[in-house]
Amino acid sequence: MNQLFTEDIAELPSRFRANLINSITGYKSCNLIGSTSEEGLTNLAIFSSVIHIGSSPPLLGFILRPLTVRRDTFANIKALKFFTVNQVSGEMYQKAHQTSAKYEMEVSEFHETGITMEYLDDFIAPYVAESTIKMGCRYVNHYTLEENDCLLVVAAIERLYFPDGIQDPDGFIRLDKADTVTAMGMDGYALPAFLDRLTYARPGSEPRTIIHGA
Amino acid sequence: MNQLFTEDIAELPSRFRANLINSITGYKSCNLIGSTSEEGLTNLAIFSSVIHIGSSPPLLGFILRPLTVRRDTFANIKALKFFTVNQVSGEMYQKAHQTSAKYEMEVSEFHETGITMEYLDDFIAPYVAESTIKMGCRYVNHYTLEENDCLLVVAAIERLYFPDGIQDPDGFIRLDKADTVTAMGMDGYALPAFLDRLTYARPGSEPRTIIHGA
Repeated sequence: MNQLFTEDIAELPSRFRANLINSITGYKSCNLIGSTSEEGLTNLAIFSSVIHIGSSPPLLGFILRPLTVRRDTFANIKALKFFTVNQVSGEMYQKAHQTSAKYEMEVSEFHETGITMEYLDDFIAPYVAESTIKMGCRYVNHYTLEENDCLLVVAAIERLYFPDGIQDPDGFIRLDKADTVTAMGMDGYALPAFLDRLTYARPGSEPRTIIHGA
Repeated sequence: MNQLFTEDIAELPSRFRANLINSITGYKSCNLIGSTSEEGLTNLAIFSSVIHIGSSPPLLGFILRPLTVRRDTFANIKALKFFTVNQVSGEMYQKAHQTSAKYEMEVSEFHETGITMEYLDDFIAPYVAESTIKMGCRYVNHYTLEENDCLLVVAAIERLYFPDGIQDPDGFIRLDKADTVTAMGMDGYALPAFLDRLTYARPGSEPRTIIHGA
């Protein structure tokens, strides 16, 4: 058994600590955020911090590192308000990972990584053609976390695209049927195998498996 | 291909929309939060919203639904400041799910679900004995999201426990070796299979597989 207290964690080499702390809280979502600058330059960046914020209204969030260096995605979102969130699949995670390279602002990660740009229904921001699940989002707000100057960006989900055959009758999306990957730490990828869905828990009864979301 | 715009999403039945929007942003972490009330009552609750906030200092966060009903976990954390985060494994996800039942405040979810309470190194909050990865955390701050009155709670990771054999030499935790599950939507569970770790991305080169995190 490994046991680390505050002082032990503080004394770890910085990269080692980042690998440890980034991976230990659990699995993460894995998405590509597509955006466009005011000058019309497209940008694509991988994020493992996209989270569910609420269903009514439909909101998602993501954590952005401090604005001490150039953050093209945030600058674009602040300027044009709209962006896309596109899920990374097992077919394309290497290309998706490559979007994290520090390209010059004038360079489009679509071009450099060979990921296919796609425009849908007059939405201003580019989608990823290879992604099976895509969302068109509108910037709503952001919160600066004073503990480390990271930002929580909150956005409205305004458009959804997903293929037939991955949704249960009760609305639930079977991410495993979409070949969606999950992110581990800063550089790890895994492909989940479906285990179960369980009925709404109530005191005094045991949860049962939900059959086909019906 | 399914396509839903803002008005379509708004018109969905509430439970269907919740299933859809909760699941579509991607895979989520799956943890049990252990806490104690001022009166000494223990509480255990499953959360799929624990996220990485920062490594230096080590911070995690989680989203809490609006305080319009009783939220024992938040009340306990505000009162005593300390709580535990314990990963859910494939062996125990049914019991973990059952902690989401609305038990009376006086009832301990440990007792009701058969999950084993454990105290470690004089920490005030209870850990989950069955969890292979456990964290002792201290409340730091919270942010109220004005869009839907949810809270983002920010906490310092002060203690870490994990078994031998799941950490790469560079610090990365192999969650798959810990049998950690990932959460899908409000009631789904999946077990990820490791795909890859990729080298730090740089313009002009292709990411390669990291061998054993060395």
